[in-house]
Amino acid sequence: MSTLSRRGRGMVKDILPYFKESMIASSDAFSSENSDGYVNFSIAENRQCAASLRQKLVDCAQEEPDHLFYDDMKGKEKFRSQIAGYLERTVVGRKVDPSHVCASSGVGACLEMLSFALCEDGESMLIPAPYYTGFDNDTGIRPGLALVPCERRAENNFSITRESLDDAKKRAEREGTPARCLLISNPDNPTGLCFSESDVQMMVDWCRDNKIHGIFDEIYANSVYGNDEFNSVTRVTGNDMGDYVHALFGMSKDFGLSGYRIGFIYTQNKELMSAINMQSYFCAISCQTQTTIGGLLSDAPFIDSFIKENNEKLKHLSTKLLGELQAGGIRCVVPSAGFFIFLNLSELMEEDTVESEKKLWMSLFNESKVLFTPGFACHSQENGWFRCCFAAVDEDAMMEGCRRIIDFVNARRRH
Amino acid sequence: MSTLSRRGRGMVKDILPYFKESMIASSDAFSSENSDGYVNFSIAENRQCAASLRQKLVDCAQEEPDHLFYDDMKGKEKFRSQIAGYLERTVVGRKVDPSHVCASSGVGACLEMLSFALCEDGESMLIPAPYYTGFDNDTGIRPGLALVPCERRAENNFSITRESLDDAKKRAEREGTPARCLLISNPDNPTGLCFSESDVQMMVDWCRDNKIHGIFDEIYANSVYGNDEFNSVTRVTGNDMGDYVHALFGMSKDFGLSGYRIGFIYTQNKELMSAINMQSYFCAISCQTQTTIGGLLSDAPFIDSFIKENNEKLKHLSTKLLGELQAGGIRCVVPSAGFFIFLNLSELMEEDTVESEKKLWMSLFNESKVLFTPGFACHSQENGWFRCCFAAVDEDAMMEGCRRIIDFVNARRRH
Repeated sequence: MSTLSRRGRGMVKDILPYFKESMIASSDAFSSENSDGYVNFSIAENRQCAASLRQKLVDCAQEEPDHLFYDDMKGKEKFRSQIAGYLERTVVGRKVDPSHVCASSGVGACLEMLSFALCEDGESMLIPAPYYTGFDNDTGIRPGLALVPCERRAENNFSITRESLDDAKKRAEREGTPARCLLISNPDNPTGLCFSESDVQMMVDWCRDNKIHGIFDEIYANSVYGNDEFNSVTRVTGNDMGDYVHALFGMSKDFGLSGYRIGFIYTQNKELMSAINMQSYFCAISCQTQTTIGGLLSDAPFIDSFIKENNEKLKHLSTKLLGELQAGGIRCVVPSAGFFIFLNLSELMEEDTVESEKKLWMSLFNESKVLFTPGFACHSQENGWFRCCFAAVDEDAMMEGCRRIIDFVNARRRH
Repeated sequence: MSTLSRRGRGMVKDILPYFKESMIASSDAFSSENSDGYVNFSIAENRQCAASLRQKLVDCAQEEPDHLFYDDMKGKEKFRSQIAGYLERTVVGRKVDPSHVCASSGVGACLEMLSFALCEDGESMLIPAPYYTGFDNDTGIRPGLALVPCERRAENNFSITRESLDDAKKRAEREGTPARCLLISNPDNPTGLCFSESDVQMMVDWCRDNKIHGIFDEIYANSVYGNDEFNSVTRVTGNDMGDYVHALFGMSKDFGLSGYRIGFIYTQNKELMSAINMQSYFCAISCQTQTTIGGLLSDAPFIDSFIKENNEKLKHLSTKLLGELQAGGIRCVVPSAGFFIFLNLSELMEEDTVESEKKLWMSLFNESKVLFTPGFACHSQENGWFRCCFAAVDEDAMMEGCRRIIDFVNARRRH
């Protein structure tokens, strides 16, 4: 018999719907020495920039006397100034007040704090679907929120309309989980697209009109390499976000530093920052790591050249993979940002169902040893979509995986 | 008008009832150059061991390739092995399985995870009062638990009986907040006492009999210097804790590393560890800090001599301060562990009320520039108690504070 609470029992499960497969794929990964290993395209991690960062991290790591003691749990004053300077320079384009910034143990922890502070247990956030799988945990596991999808379709290039927001809001109300927030990932995971300036403006206006908090997760803000322009909500609002607009940033994606556990909240809502202050004790970053990351962020010339180099690598990989997949006749969303190509294999499904999608996904995994993030895990409303994360493996592995995908598709087409 | 949720609005307050006073005292602290500054005895921090640790931390800090990427959020396998080895050697005395250990961003975050996993919102934990102020936040702010005090009295040396546990359990039930856990701080904050072996055994038995989880916060396990023997629940149970007994440890107190944000959960309850695994993503420690702290913990000779030296310092300070206070006729609990002397000034109160205690506390702060943790903040059931934390200031400041206390008391007695 369980000794846990009901909510505790709800936590006894895999952290992701494809966790087991991902563990298998990572423990037997393809390499030049293991040509029969798996190619794991399911992890949104960027391992391309590790080499250029490691020495810099060593240089920035300094033991300082004040590391040892209690300090502001949402980030030391110096660290928050360094973050503010970094955001100013690379994203916002205007002055960022360090008192509007909080640093915590990853963007997931940041979103969890917002969930608690802005919503009751049993309320909801609206979110354009397909969406990043992890949002379910960030808002649901402890804060107890539901995520209510806003419809968007591939045929409209996954754009969002005012009507789809209104519809989702009404649906949330009907389902007894009233919406308090709209959660937007921009640049968008899993599509790799960026929302247009007018789309962002529309969403901001809609939030303000409806007194719904707009949370803009911009964790990929500095991983933009394609044709779409990235329009940060901080710029679209002229850095005058007011009480209903908040932005999230982090180091896990743009710097490939997921092991350092660094996320930032940028909000001008004072009352909210006070509620964040109270919670930040439960997800604080070690002062040692604050010093290291603060040193990194405040070296403007390094940051500028790092971001440039990183995006050149992403563009190179993305262009190469996209070209091969498209040459193989595979339907892909052309990405502008992030580490993924969102692709469609519905032509190979027996039926237009989640079960068929799952079966196809498992066949590719078992027969070709290629692992995608499946569309059902991203709450895709259309079946047959898969997220292919290309930056967590090296280029050889990426190309091997690409060949396997195309061979798999061709073999299926012949049947 | 507030834009936050009800629970968010509940977070808009100071993190401690004496936060403002503590900030004032710290920003104008007594020193040889500032002889008119405040002596802040309200912070349970140990700054005595900083000098012996700093070089060791520098030596242990290494940038390793796998710092950069996602890993087990409750601690890398290597780190959890290092923690297990440290606990084995210094506390448990028997083999600790690393899979029973979780490392997260501070013991507060650890207790918060247990609160979510073991209790529903609106349920409660029983706790011997007076108790550490921060427990209210750890269990209440986000998990939504009530803390229901078990009575204990100075005249019985703050011991706990089976009857007081039964009473508290019934009271919790009556108040509509049924108890799911018993939260014990051992060594005890704020009294500085250790529970006897038979007391710990009684509490373990009571928990098992009542199917109530016993959470033993042993964050001061290696800060024991006095006459009481410390009886870790891990030893009392012969390291066979079962599903209903769990222990917490950390680096903030025994190593004075509160800025590193390191707490450990030790539990043999597999289902609970699974629920912790899910939550650990929201309070993970940076891999950089895991490597540094792991290196420190696995150097057994260093650890042994550090703990010995640290406890000699604590004993020296505690003995000196206690002697002076007692010579001044001030009633003190004789501590065996931790950084505090729990002392009683009720003789100076106008009435036996919380208001009188508060007034006395503020007089000492305003007139003598000495700040204690007040008894009301520790939910003391008897008025007039104060926690005097002696290890966050240097010995000169401690003695200056001591003189001021005695002068204050003597002046009041003459009136």
